[in-house]
Amino acid sequence: MKKIKLLFFILLIFALNLYAQQLIKPKNIILMIGDGMGLAQISAGKTYKGLLNLERMKVVGLLTTYSCDRYVTDSGASATAMSTGYKTKNVAIGVDCNGERRKTVLEYANEIGKSTGVVVVCAITHATPAAFVAHVPNRNMQIEIAEQIAKEANTDIYLGAGWGWFLPKSEGGRRTDGQNLIDTLKKRGYVYISKPEEFYNLDMSKVNKLIGLFAENHPPYAPDRKPTLAEMTRKAIEFLSKDKDGFFLMVEGSQIDWAGHDNNSEQILREVADFDDAVGVALDFAQRDGNTLVVVTADHETGGYALVDGSVNDKKVEGKFVTKDHTGVMVPVFAFGPGAEAFAGFGDNTLIGKKIFEYLKK
Amino acid sequence: MKKIKLLFFILLIFALNLYAQQLIKPKNIILMIGDGMGLAQISAGKTYKGLLNLERMKVVGLLTTYSCDRYVTDSGASATAMSTGYKTKNVAIGVDCNGERRKTVLEYANEIGKSTGVVVVCAITHATPAAFVAHVPNRNMQIEIAEQIAKEANTDIYLGAGWGWFLPKSEGGRRTDGQNLIDTLKKRGYVYISKPEEFYNLDMSKVNKLIGLFAENHPPYAPDRKPTLAEMTRKAIEFLSKDKDGFFLMVEGSQIDWAGHDNNSEQILREVADFDDAVGVALDFAQRDGNTLVVVTADHETGGYALVDGSVNDKKVEGKFVTKDHTGVMVPVFAFGPGAEAFAGFGDNTLIGKKIFEYLKK
Repeated sequence: MKKIKLLFFILLIFALNLYAQQLIKPKNIILMIGDGMGLAQISAGKTYKGLLNLERMKVVGLLTTYSCDRYVTDSGASATAMSTGYKTKNVAIGVDCNGERRKTVLEYANEIGKSTGVVVVCAITHATPAAFVAHVPNRNMQIEIAEQIAKEANTDIYLGAGWGWFLPKSEGGRRTDGQNLIDTLKKRGYVYISKPEEFYNLDMSKVNKLIGLFAENHPPYAPDRKPTLAEMTRKAIEFLSKDKDGFFLMVEGSQIDWAGHDNNSEQILREVADFDDAVGVALDFAQRDGNTLVVVTADHETGGYALVDGSVNDKKVEGKFVTKDHTGVMVPVFAFGPGAEAFAGFGDNTLIGKKIFEYLKK
Repeated sequence: MKKIKLLFFILLIFALNLYAQQLIKPKNIILMIGDGMGLAQISAGKTYKGLLNLERMKVVGLLTTYSCDRYVTDSGASATAMSTGYKTKNVAIGVDCNGERRKTVLEYANEIGKSTGVVVVCAITHATPAAFVAHVPNRNMQIEIAEQIAKEANTDIYLGAGWGWFLPKSEGGRRTDGQNLIDTLKKRGYVYISKPEEFYNLDMSKVNKLIGLFAENHPPYAPDRKPTLAEMTRKAIEFLSKDKDGFFLMVEGSQIDWAGHDNNSEQILREVADFDDAVGVALDFAQRDGNTLVVVTADHETGGYALVDGSVNDKKVEGKFVTKDHTGVMVPVFAFGPGAEAFAGFGDNTLIGKKIFEYLKK
């Protein structure tokens, strides 16, 4: 009899717990994408770093990543699945399988009065960031993506690279249409910076909107990048968290993928560690804030990376690769904060977009 | 004010939930090991089967698998970590890094009056099952392992293969010491069967202890095995669940690993599907019973398996391999039922043994 009462009590608590979870609506959402960061990349990063910030996240899931037309996705299709909740064909950006424009979680967050940000270590016109702020049939249309960013998107802060896509050839850029989109952005109220010193010395109290692009196209591999992903993530969170209505921020560890394409195991270690530093910054904020959901995942795995030997004590791995391209293995997803439970267990990459929309709409 | 009350209510529910989890002690524990079943193997199995039984498990974790002396473990060292909670050197069975004999969760479950079982699709003297019922410095000592099983272990039900290790050469076995260990087992109260028909027709009401070995050494690849892993798992659970004190059962999908060593992608699909059928049997029981913890994991990944192409609609994958050996990538762990939460997030393979001991000791 005593046992039955105890069981009833436990079940009651679980039911109340499920109910309490329904009431949760995170004020802030930080989505962090390790491009090409499969489980082997994470494992290698853990061996290299000893303890990952990722390990502070107790909710783990596994996501399928296939696109409309391919078992093995590209970054554009997978980022679109995460930014819109809709699958699309490989190389498409911000549109669905039929090519129809789909609203992104970042755009919707803007609409409902939240602040928004994009922080990457590549050109902001590259596939993953583009999928949150632009809509084009092909990721290679970076000239058009830059134009959409400059003229249509309302993101409050961009930190990354790729100023060449915004300037005409006459001013050292890549545009043949003569447009100076940095001027366009300035007219729309953006403060523009392009040098690390400007980043480190910026008086953010005078900034309303910010675009910081620290390389003509892409910055170099870590650790040769300044500012670092972690530094930019910290600055973006400081800036965005002033909004009492909350914020949405997308952070990408862009070059884990490139180290995979290069079949460069040593660089994978450095890029995962660099990304994990940024994860630590986001988790520190989320822990202090108590009302921030942090979701960390990958768009796909790159390289068919395998760890054939290594040493936990010496913090090193011997990595081998099956391909110079992406693979179709599921990717882990980690979540922390209110609403994290939705990402536990098996899912599809569209779950990311769908759930973030759901939380924003609550 | 209303918001603060709501927040307080939610926090209270969470606190009560944590407390309720502390009270949990699963009556029955089923540990299922997919040998060599890394995330790529699971992903391939999902593509092949469409929906996995594994997906019914919402708690997911990631385990490091390194042994005392190697970054890339063998099955013996990893199974020992899971069976005892202690790391050991590669090829060791049921002993720690210093070679000291360590009690296994199965042995302890026996001691405290629970029923116990081992269900595999390999010789029960092979590394993984051996690590739960025997203690030897080297997994190749299968002659000694068989002797320990026959004379010392108190497992209530074995279903698997490898009768050759228990019989003298004169009776078609592999033993040169002249011992007939099947006779030893019979004297100790075991019913012995070796043919699928005996398995299917057995009147379990007359069985006190059972050993079923359906091949001289190992059975063939799926689907050419009879009885199947799922059939044996069902029989074992039916038998063990009669014990009002509860049971511990270890089930191994032994040949996922072998398909990896063979770099045979097609066979990996069949072996993961076969193992997942057994997972379904265990989960069906656990759902009905309500007091059973099911933990599914792998000892390591095999092959550096990568999915370079495939089709969700056609349920097929193109797999490639980096090696014919194991790799050091972390392995996923899935848990269902009371106590499952302990396996969420990052961990080490020793967590399996430690937590099962903890639940048995509560």
